[in-house]
Amino acid sequence: MRLSELGEKKLIELVMKLIRVNPKSLLKLGLDDADALRLEEGVYVFNTDFVAESTDKLPGMTYRQLARKCIVANAADLAAKGAKPEGFLASVALPSDFDLSSFEEIFRGLDQGAAEYDSYLLGGDLGEAKEVLISVSAFGRVRKKLISREGAREGDLVAVTGFFGWNTLAFMALLEGLELPDEIRKKALESAFLPKAPLREGLILSESEVVTSAIDSSDGLYASLDHLSKTSKVGFLIERLPVEDKLVKFVSKRGLDLIRIIFYGGEEFHLIFTVPPSDWEKVRLSLCSEGLTVIPIGKVISETKIVVVHDSRKITLHEGGWEHFTS
Amino acid sequence: MRLSELGEKKLIELVMKLIRVNPKSLLKLGLDDADALRLEEGVYVFNTDFVAESTDKLPGMTYRQLARKCIVANAADLAAKGAKPEGFLASVALPSDFDLSSFEEIFRGLDQGAAEYDSYLLGGDLGEAKEVLISVSAFGRVRKKLISREGAREGDLVAVTGFFGWNTLAFMALLEGLELPDEIRKKALESAFLPKAPLREGLILSESEVVTSAIDSSDGLYASLDHLSKTSKVGFLIERLPVEDKLVKFVSKRGLDLIRIIFYGGEEFHLIFTVPPSDWEKVRLSLCSEGLTVIPIGKVISETKIVVVHDSRKITLHEGGWEHFTS
Repeated sequence: MRLSELGEKKLIELVMKLIRVNPKSLLKLGLDDADALRLEEGVYVFNTDFVAESTDKLPGMTYRQLARKCIVANAADLAAKGAKPEGFLASVALPSDFDLSSFEEIFRGLDQGAAEYDSYLLGGDLGEAKEVLISVSAFGRVRKKLISREGAREGDLVAVTGFFGWNTLAFMALLEGLELPDEIRKKALESAFLPKAPLREGLILSESEVVTSAIDSSDGLYASLDHLSKTSKVGFLIERLPVEDKLVKFVSKRGLDLIRIIFYGGEEFHLIFTVPPSDWEKVRLSLCSEGLTVIPIGKVISETKIVVVHDSRKITLHEGGWEHFTS
Repeated sequence: MRLSELGEKKLIELVMKLIRVNPKSLLKLGLDDADALRLEEGVYVFNTDFVAESTDKLPGMTYRQLARKCIVANAADLAAKGAKPEGFLASVALPSDFDLSSFEEIFRGLDQGAAEYDSYLLGGDLGEAKEVLISVSAFGRVRKKLISREGAREGDLVAVTGFFGWNTLAFMALLEGLELPDEIRKKALESAFLPKAPLREGLILSESEVVTSAIDSSDGLYASLDHLSKTSKVGFLIERLPVEDKLVKFVSKRGLDLIRIIFYGGEEFHLIFTVPPSDWEKVRLSLCSEGLTVIPIGKVISETKIVVVHDSRKITLHEGGWEHFTS
């Protein structure tokens, strides 16, 4: 069945069956088109991210995964600031001949994503466009400290909350035909199709009050370090690669470029954060005691460069590539 | 120049030159991708609306007007709830061969719209899609009373904050080739290209605390009354048409259907609200004393119908059309 056969009213009724309603809502979602909440005083973070079918729907990815991923991208941005999502808004643009079951999958994916972060869809807009486009806005309350991208200081340690490279392998497999062994393929596709936002990590970092800067790594590890570098006016010396052994083995066996795979991927929603060395152990413990991953990868340097120690050599990363350290 | 020649970083730098930055922002927009604000305790309204070029950009409309109209649509939804915008988020999807000057116009339009409601863009997302799509989310704090769509009671008066029909004439002129005399054409196109959100009206109604229900008329006067009717479980008897004499004269001279033009348009962002008769004079005065338009158009009835008295006859409106009253 096509959307055009149902019309907007029926579609909205259907959406209301697919999503949970926030018990704290002060307006009746579905009957009203906006929503209202009583908020307590505090610092709130606002973010928006969209996905378009032509750009973001990987081969083999379902609409449900695409929609959920848009929620995850928003939740990751909030997590990086130390904020817990209070609600999501979703604008969903669809071609009129779009099929009804995929429509349902989009809203299941949105609601599933919101539920994973203990939150709700607060409202939305539904309309026609030439391709599928899902735009999500999120707002959330800062747990304790608002963490920004500026504040990293020379001597701080830099750490991440997950391993990198799986997503790049997934892109290479899906878009360039790279063949992957089953075990590697499974990890890679899970990273690309079902990413998770580091929300618990972000809230713990906010609570610690000692983190000097943070960013989520959705633009890729190099680009995200570069954002932190430019905003904090510092550089990074990366002495340990945040990568799993089985990925390293696979990459080396195939003769692939490990640095490129780790640093120049994207859509891996880990946190990258900086913390003074004296506070490191406290932060590490607070994450580990909750069963969360945390990997120290290096330190903040004064020069605004991103330098990586790899195979006992120093290399400097640049936009779009890397080169051996020359000075 | 095309967007693809510049790249995302340069485009974001350009955006930051085109928009004002909220002095209350706690993060550095442009360097950070989310924004944070300290909010005081209260009831906040959240809304999202998008426009797509293929559906919403009328012939002759500029990108600046299209972008501004998306802000207006959001502000109107907030106004209907009695909330003042605190900020807007904008996701802007564009084809890669989109031209740079139109790109600038989009952000000028977004910022202009936000400025008109004494507010700011808080953040956004920029990306590629097959057509231009602008999705705006808005949040605002309720001035005093949160006004919903339910609460209209039998006997309440129903009133609107503007005249209807101009937009329908604009659509007929732009999409169907209806010829309009200069004076009529000017009013009609202004309504379609440069609509205004009834924000001052909404805040005054919220402050009065006596309004029982409200909605903005963006879906058209009939459809909006129908929403109020379904949510409040009442009906409406419309005894006075909210229309200007010069429109009536033109429509009758051309033999056009006045009821259709007034009730079945859309994107006229006036408020429709209900108020107990005993509070009417107070509400009317509070709007008039600020130089704002308010037109009583009828009353709330118990039967869930929308009945219009026109040319001394009663007609009942339905979805998509009207018929003479038969019972």
